[in-house]
Amino acid sequence: MHLLSTKGFIAQGVAAGIKQSGKNDVGLLVAEYFATAAAAFTTNKVFAAPIAVGRQHVRNGVLKGVVLNSGNANACTGKQGLSDARRMCALAGQLCFAPAHLFLPSSTGIIGHPLPMNEVCAGIRAAASDLGNSQEHAHHFTDAILTTDTVRKFACARFKINDKIVHLTGICKGAGMIGPRMLVPQATMLAYLLTDADIAAPLLRRLLSQAVDLSFNNVTIDNHMSTNDTAVLLASGMSRASIKSKPQIQKFTDALVDVTTDLARQIAADGEGATKILTVRVRGARSASDARTIARAIADSPLVKCAIHGNDPNWGRIVSAAGMCNAYFNPDRATLTLQRTVVYRHGQPVSFNASKVSQSLKSKEVIAELDCGSGQGESTVWTCDFSKEYVTINADYHT
Amino acid sequence: MHLLSTKGFIAQGVAAGIKQSGKNDVGLLVAEYFATAAAAFTTNKVFAAPIAVGRQHVRNGVLKGVVLNSGNANACTGKQGLSDARRMCALAGQLCFAPAHLFLPSSTGIIGHPLPMNEVCAGIRAAASDLGNSQEHAHHFTDAILTTDTVRKFACARFKINDKIVHLTGICKGAGMIGPRMLVPQATMLAYLLTDADIAAPLLRRLLSQAVDLSFNNVTIDNHMSTNDTAVLLASGMSRASIKSKPQIQKFTDALVDVTTDLARQIAADGEGATKILTVRVRGARSASDARTIARAIADSPLVKCAIHGNDPNWGRIVSAAGMCNAYFNPDRATLTLQRTVVYRHGQPVSFNASKVSQSLKSKEVIAELDCGSGQGESTVWTCDFSKEYVTINADYHT
Repeated sequence: MHLLSTKGFIAQGVAAGIKQSGKNDVGLLVAEYFATAAAAFTTNKVFAAPIAVGRQHVRNGVLKGVVLNSGNANACTGKQGLSDARRMCALAGQLCFAPAHLFLPSSTGIIGHPLPMNEVCAGIRAAASDLGNSQEHAHHFTDAILTTDTVRKFACARFKINDKIVHLTGICKGAGMIGPRMLVPQATMLAYLLTDADIAAPLLRRLLSQAVDLSFNNVTIDNHMSTNDTAVLLASGMSRASIKSKPQIQKFTDALVDVTTDLARQIAADGEGATKILTVRVRGARSASDARTIARAIADSPLVKCAIHGNDPNWGRIVSAAGMCNAYFNPDRATLTLQRTVVYRHGQPVSFNASKVSQSLKSKEVIAELDCGSGQGESTVWTCDFSKEYVTINADYHT
Repeated sequence: MHLLSTKGFIAQGVAAGIKQSGKNDVGLLVAEYFATAAAAFTTNKVFAAPIAVGRQHVRNGVLKGVVLNSGNANACTGKQGLSDARRMCALAGQLCFAPAHLFLPSSTGIIGHPLPMNEVCAGIRAAASDLGNSQEHAHHFTDAILTTDTVRKFACARFKINDKIVHLTGICKGAGMIGPRMLVPQATMLAYLLTDADIAAPLLRRLLSQAVDLSFNNVTIDNHMSTNDTAVLLASGMSRASIKSKPQIQKFTDALVDVTTDLARQIAADGEGATKILTVRVRGARSASDARTIARAIADSPLVKCAIHGNDPNWGRIVSAAGMCNAYFNPDRATLTLQRTVVYRHGQPVSFNASKVSQSLKSKEVIAELDCGSGQGESTVWTCDFSKEYVTINADYHT
């Protein structure tokens, strides 16, 4: 399975010379006919030009495709930026025989520089001239959205609805400026999700919204919300499997949450400088919202992330992070488990074998579970450890 | 001038063996008679035993002194912790001929380990046997509160009230787990402020509260609120200068804000791994609270702090941080100045000499000024850059 195993879509990615590295930086994803569409965008009040244009273009729930570049975010670029984002859509539309407003533009990269439109337009032309649905095409397109990512991120699901096979595939990018809080209908988290299910736009919007909130909005690398975060879900309908009844919706929702959660975890694991993923599970909070606030406070603490990097079972940093945020928390009722070892219970330390727990922290995934003992609220947040490499990447990534 | 230039106080600090480094770790500060007292404590719901005890002991507005240790925070230590904090006060009281409840206990260091009471008590006895008001005594006491700090932090003011000279001196520690939001009567920021002014407890409490909110509560190193943050202000009255009238209060307030702000800036400059101080000034926000929220979002962004570390005028990170927080912000009205160079105005980049600005960022203090253009709200927040050394300190500081 790859991104384009989902029926009804073709794509291509090319190196147009926006990135100095010479890697792919322009991509085009096109529905063979048209696709029902829903999208979630950043809630940052400083949002990029493609976000402004994308919000308008996805409003009717139908898209022909997505046109994108990496290496430049087209953010804080004023009127020129808006005009450039619209020109990307117009060119993609012209080459794919569709109106400009049926393309959703995406950009990621440096903020505050005008798009190099000669390169971008040449890239769109080159991509349009060689669209296809092979694994190679999928890989070229995926590569075109990456920035400081070290690996491609892909997830998929296949399931049956009324004897018809439905595909759901997705790719995304992450690495830095990751603290998305996206709203539908409104990440530089970018995620492109494809399905060949037949599903109405309002339902697609609602299901995407739920899935984004359970997945991408629970990833944090640096708690810095991007100006460009975008998650798009396109449905070609070409499986002829209709998603209408309650059990059908449930099946589709389960697959969508699985795929988006898988992608979200891949973003955390590939965070800038990351050597491991940290999963923070909070339960027993007064509400789901309190659980998420506590989980985010823990996952966003540089002290916690450094301790995990150093394989140090320094649980005091975790408990104190839980206590500092704007959520109900009673330390005397809380229990903290690190890699299945209880280290803190009801306001008091629990004696444990520190060198054994430290050894267990050397795993590729560290799980910290905090039971607040105060209610039924649950939330899981994914992040990564904090390494010197993070500083290297972000102090040397010059404008 | 040193801490004990303020009349009416004696102190000592000793190495009691709590810290493996062999540096000073127990301190005793005593009023020759008694002192009017006010204190501000952490608002973390996970607060250390000495905070619980200190809140009770300062309630009546009178203290004999402060007894403290570093190397162990006495936090998350349950009933044993409370009993240990009380024992510190009882011993100090016994040695200084005062009731236990007139001592305020403070601890800073690792969370979740019982205090080594043999060492602590031996240290208190040793300190009590050699109290004095020399510069050496002041330095020994100051050293006893430091953890990962690299320098002593001291600030002072001297002013006249009705021809009488009033002293105001203060010391503090900072370095890590610094994101204080303290409330009176409620950092591991510790600050001890002394004055020989004659001032009533309710007024002292109000003036400390205002000063803390304008100074310490605007410092952030890692946005991690400590379990142990404490700021104490003791007034001996020995200058015989009474603070009662409006002009007297204004003079005292000005001096107090100057001293606490000076100390707050010293904490930022000596943040873990810091190579420079970053001052974020926000003005033109809808309210002072909005201004502070925006300034904190900028100062807490690891992306911003890494850019400053790398001398990179990557202003997109600053503007996007302003847009992601829970405060009104309209990018089309905002202007951002980095080291006096305008880099962004009204939603658009301003062309500037990047290498010149980058050169100017190599200063020991970087000033980012954001004018939101939306109101009269102002706030200044101090932080530091983010270096690899931060990761070294916090990944290797093992429990």
